[in-house]
Amino acid sequence: MILSEKIKKAISAFTELPGIGPRHATRLVFFLVSSPGKLKNLLAGLSSLLDVKICPRCFFTVENSDSLCRFCTDPSRDHKTIAIVEKETDLISLERTTKFKGRYLILGDLKKNGVLEDEQTRRLASLKNFILEELGGQAEEIILAINPTTFGDFSASFLEKDLKRFAKRFTRLARGIPSGGEIEFADEETLSSALEHRN
Amino acid sequence: MILSEKIKKAISAFTELPGIGPRHATRLVFFLVSSPGKLKNLLAGLSSLLDVKICPRCFFTVENSDSLCRFCTDPSRDHKTIAIVEKETDLISLERTTKFKGRYLILGDLKKNGVLEDEQTRRLASLKNFILEELGGQAEEIILAINPTTFGDFSASFLEKDLKRFAKRFTRLARGIPSGGEIEFADEETLSSALEHRN
Repeated sequence: MILSEKIKKAISAFTELPGIGPRHATRLVFFLVSSPGKLKNLLAGLSSLLDVKICPRCFFTVENSDSLCRFCTDPSRDHKTIAIVEKETDLISLERTTKFKGRYLILGDLKKNGVLEDEQTRRLASLKNFILEELGGQAEEIILAINPTTFGDFSASFLEKDLKRFAKRFTRLARGIPSGGEIEFADEETLSSALEHRN
Repeated sequence: MILSEKIKKAISAFTELPGIGPRHATRLVFFLVSSPGKLKNLLAGLSSLLDVKICPRCFFTVENSDSLCRFCTDPSRDHKTIAIVEKETDLISLERTTKFKGRYLILGDLKKNGVLEDEQTRRLASLKNFILEELGGQAEEIILAINPTTFGDFSASFLEKDLKRFAKRFTRLARGIPSGGEIEFADEETLSSALEHRN
């Protein structure tokens, strides 16, 4: 019993977070104990997250209300074009381009075994429901903005099959050589795709 | 302005912690927003850290009192043998061996430029003071339990010079082949040290 219950409890709360192992958690707890200012700062930051809710339509964050988020309520956006992303940070990356003016569905990390979690099934059902009720049964386009990896391809084809009758068109983000990248270092698959979809 | 102030505040509080960059912090915040149970659990764990204090003698954690920690108040421990460690986790590792029955001084991470932080100077001064007042001016032994790296060696020699007249003996942890390790894969320096200090 080298560590007290309080320290252990805080360490175990940290280890429940993604990407934080027990060693890192221990380091964080001792750091916070010896930095009371940062501990208070973190407590304040986390407490204010208690007010943040999830948009019932796209599942992005929404504040100070139980209604829809600003993407879902923005009349200037094209609600018939829906980008399905795994993570909130993917949505943020797409927003930063300022090129996408449709709306979103955040699905959560897709498992590599191709089985949807209950929450993911629920979110897809809510999308289907929205398309049925608000778009007359079919969206213009569903962009499957899933990572271009083997698992991502698998998930995308699975989702496309599931959503088949709910959109006129299914697309994925283009694959190619990143801006500033070099042809010499592109892998064969990327280069094949860049050649095939040359524009 | 894709992210709200509340989300940004929580992200920035996380990025102040060691080993958490802005991307990881963002991921943690969105994870917590969609897992209210884990958010509450983390808040409870962190709140209880507010009661944890630092022992004014060895600088390990102490709870529910402003007095010394259980190592510093344990009469069965040898207070004339002091292990200087950088981190609380180093202390925990040494305690887990159950072989060390002296006391500790936690110094905090030593900078690679060999300059002590103010807090570290203060902790060393407090150790010197303890040795002068409670041990009659000299400890039996100071174990410089600093990592056996080039920087660690540098810090240890620096600390030994600084504490010269406060201990009869200065030691470091033995270097050698780890238990279960293989001679074939030991680097030259480790193997030289293991040979020289064979026992």
